[in-house]
Amino acid sequence: MKKTAKAISTEPYKGVRDFYPEDMYIQKYMFQKMREVVESFGYIEYGASILEPSELYQAKSGEEIVNDQTYSFKDRGDRDVTLRPEMTPTVARMVARKKRDLSFPIRWYSIPNLFRYEQPQRGRVREHFQLNVDLFGSESINADLEVIKIAYQIMKNFGAKDSDFQIRINDRKIASELYKLYNLNETDSYKLSKVIDKKNKISKESFEEAVEIILKDKASEFMVLLTSNEKLLTKIGENNPNVKNLISIIENLTSSGITNVVFDQTLMRGFDYYTGTVFEIFDTNPENKRSIFGGGRYDELLDIFDAPKMPAVGFGMGDVTTEDFLETHNLLPEYKSNVKLYICKLDEKYSSEVEALADKLRKKGLCVAIDLSDKKVGDQIKTADKQKIPFVICIGEDEVKKKEFKIKNLATGEEKTVTEDEIASVIHPIK
Amino acid sequence: MKKTAKAISTEPYKGVRDFYPEDMYIQKYMFQKMREVVESFGYIEYGASILEPSELYQAKSGEEIVNDQTYSFKDRGDRDVTLRPEMTPTVARMVARKKRDLSFPIRWYSIPNLFRYEQPQRGRVREHFQLNVDLFGSESINADLEVIKIAYQIMKNFGAKDSDFQIRINDRKIASELYKLYNLNETDSYKLSKVIDKKNKISKESFEEAVEIILKDKASEFMVLLTSNEKLLTKIGENNPNVKNLISIIENLTSSGITNVVFDQTLMRGFDYYTGTVFEIFDTNPENKRSIFGGGRYDELLDIFDAPKMPAVGFGMGDVTTEDFLETHNLLPEYKSNVKLYICKLDEKYSSEVEALADKLRKKGLCVAIDLSDKKVGDQIKTADKQKIPFVICIGEDEVKKKEFKIKNLATGEEKTVTEDEIASVIHPIK
Repeated sequence: MKKTAKAISTEPYKGVRDFYPEDMYIQKYMFQKMREVVESFGYIEYGASILEPSELYQAKSGEEIVNDQTYSFKDRGDRDVTLRPEMTPTVARMVARKKRDLSFPIRWYSIPNLFRYEQPQRGRVREHFQLNVDLFGSESINADLEVIKIAYQIMKNFGAKDSDFQIRINDRKIASELYKLYNLNETDSYKLSKVIDKKNKISKESFEEAVEIILKDKASEFMVLLTSNEKLLTKIGENNPNVKNLISIIENLTSSGITNVVFDQTLMRGFDYYTGTVFEIFDTNPENKRSIFGGGRYDELLDIFDAPKMPAVGFGMGDVTTEDFLETHNLLPEYKSNVKLYICKLDEKYSSEVEALADKLRKKGLCVAIDLSDKKVGDQIKTADKQKIPFVICIGEDEVKKKEFKIKNLATGEEKTVTEDEIASVIHPIK
Repeated sequence: MKKTAKAISTEPYKGVRDFYPEDMYIQKYMFQKMREVVESFGYIEYGASILEPSELYQAKSGEEIVNDQTYSFKDRGDRDVTLRPEMTPTVARMVARKKRDLSFPIRWYSIPNLFRYEQPQRGRVREHFQLNVDLFGSESINADLEVIKIAYQIMKNFGAKDSDFQIRINDRKIASELYKLYNLNETDSYKLSKVIDKKNKISKESFEEAVEIILKDKASEFMVLLTSNEKLLTKIGENNPNVKNLISIIENLTSSGITNVVFDQTLMRGFDYYTGTVFEIFDTNPENKRSIFGGGRYDELLDIFDAPKMPAVGFGMGDVTTEDFLETHNLLPEYKSNVKLYICKLDEKYSSEVEALADKLRKKGLCVAIDLSDKKVGDQIKTADKQKIPFVICIGEDEVKKKEFKIKNLATGEEKTVTEDEIASVIHPIK
């Protein structure tokens, strides 16, 4: 075997994460809490490859994402491939592909990893995971409501209080109505929504300047509307069906006990494909005051496949921003090993007894690791302790003869002498 | 919003798979069965990004893989990136990176997706998933034994009989001993092992020719050894420590009840990093007679990071070959939805009652979907049936008034009238 000339770095690729068992524990915990909620609402899991034909993103993902932030390359067969930067185009593609075989409405979820070429910083990595929850085939506002309720319930399932976060809601159609009143054409409407989307990321001056370029002498009147939901709604008219729809969603949420909801007319969401309701969950902690995740209605995305219209609403919840939120609010659990018992041996000659005992306990559903070293027993126990395995048993002459075992709880130091049959109940006591 | 000029294809990228809920069900089933076994042996899960610096694979993965089969490209920062074609270099990198903090031996597992640019065909796709099980920090043959036992137990956990598969074992060191007897230098030894590895993929003539080029006039004597384990072992000597080691592993497996094991001196495994025991699980079905998965000992892989020597043994079990095996042997389960109840309504006005009932049942841990359409009740029930949801309840005037519900089992047609509190026990009867 050839030796390499130069040592290879042990660092991961820039901007991505290694998940050591402790990190994986947190990730698995988060995904489990998400799964519990979405499955209780009747959603089923699907999956897809991270590799997609690049054309999938050229239509509606928003220019910045496609041009500057994707991992795109040519494969060895000269095909343009992209590592998916988001899941919505993929799920829309899958729904369009099997449209005839599926019975709508369908409720689907997935927890894919997604890729963006970004400068790594807090909350931004080049590969992240994102729960995607989508409901296809219903135009009912009950579908919008359901999806927002799921988002809320996931936060609650993490142990968050209502005061820890806020649900901000808008409707893209309300913005469109407003732009119509200012006689904006499609291009200018699009530009204005992009400017409003960036409002909190740019200076007040830059924002006002950008609005003025589009709206000219109407800019100052428009700025006033932006500061007051009431004025905006009065301007559009409270009988406007889109306004009514939005008010109805907020009222419905409130009456079902979800009261941390506000109408936010400046909420746009980055993706171009949203057509109606949009919402975002914001952290209310002053130190982490920002969007955790969001979603909305996208009734026209299947158009890009020339498939008939298919109403759809959903959201994506990223692991990095979620973990930041949980950390800020002290909601992350402490690491626990899934291994519950470590069996040590006083001498190599007890190997087969150790194996046999471990195998019996495994058949009862216990997760058991055995020591393979020729270290002293004290050092074997230290290994278990460092690996956060809660219980140990040591096998020697006595244990083999008497078939009795001292089981030690490493957290408390407590020892208990038990028969083989009693071991499992010490580790998993019946409550 | 701009329309695209040309409809985008709904096909996935060439050689990768979409996982619709039915496919995902199978995948989740397989991963669950694998997890049960590896966790019972005390292994804990880790993860990593699919993106790795390309240099990681340039050392020891084997030439074919690196040069012809990887997805490699330059990122926007001119870094060479590769989509991992296998997990072992990654886990070795992670272990080397935190070597000081980890308490050895460590038992780790992961189920990553891996990428190879191959011509798609049965059992070969461009993205597949693979259970990776690795034990670092033990030179003991008990470590080799444990890993082989896990492989065996996973097969059993899938419901396979001993006669459905065979475990073939070899030791790279035995091959090395043999090459020494023929005075082969390192380069020729490497070449010969590659030729033997390809034995079953090339014609008898090509194989003999390739052996002759390396061994010249000793070729025919060597060919005789290859046909008989007994002759090979006699040639090397039964007291050779490597021969003794291998025999001991096979005897130990047999005595612990694993009898479908054979010594296969032609077993090499493709990767260059193996240093000792190698093994493969073969399907014995005449229609699918091939390797399902395998692994071995790789004590020198951490060398590439200039890290001190770290003994390691493990295996990788791919989802595609495993699914083929399970399919061939009729061991795949039938699809079941995780959604257990579908609530229909006789009229839109009962929406809030439907919501309220669903929410109460969800709090009890039931997975409940509600109908959002304005279809006739019969069509709502059809939706549930097509989605393989086993139970339905319909809400109308009567149900709202009496607080009694008819719960229908769609498989049997059986109906039962129950109170709200009794619904959960009909769906999950206590056995």
